[in-house]
Amino acid sequence: MTQFMDVHRGMLGITADQLQEAHQADLAIEKEEGVHFKQAWADPDSGIVYCLSEAPSADAVQRIHERAGHKADEIHPVPLTV
Amino acid sequence: MTQFMDVHRGMLGITADQLQEAHQADLAIEKEEGVHFKQAWADPDSGIVYCLSEAPSADAVQRIHERAGHKADEIHPVPLTV
Repeated sequence: MTQFMDVHRGMLGITADQLQEAHQADLAIEKEEGVHFKQAWADPDSGIVYCLSEAPSADAVQRIHERAGHKADEIHPVPLTV
Repeated sequence: MTQFMDVHRGMLGITADQLQEAHQADLAIEKEEGVHFKQAWADPDSGIVYCLSEAPSADAVQRIHERAGHKADEIHPVPLTV
């Protein structure tokens, strides 16, 4: 399993409830692709959301995000962490 | 205090030791600006590093990163988190 950071753009004005709802939609189906979404951070003013996961591949992350209704704009493996 | 996510590009080939060293350079002086660097994630293949902090402002984050020798390319407040 590798960690991935993905980025969603265009989420201008996202609220805490909407972020929670989007995260729950991922969590509800993540096991079907062996993914676990760990954390997400949002900036309503720029519309950027960062999302940290553990997954077998970037494609697996994207499949869950797409099915949950919020395709990622970028997905990067982040094998190094401090 | 607000959380910030900042992004560094061009760190192609960064190693675990280099990430640790860069993070320690931030930690060594972060208190002078009231910043705390919490975590960082790196992708050696794309050269992207994501860095999560708590700080009084984006400018405070940047001042520490600049003095530590690695200016951020983007800094976004991330007031929402799950």
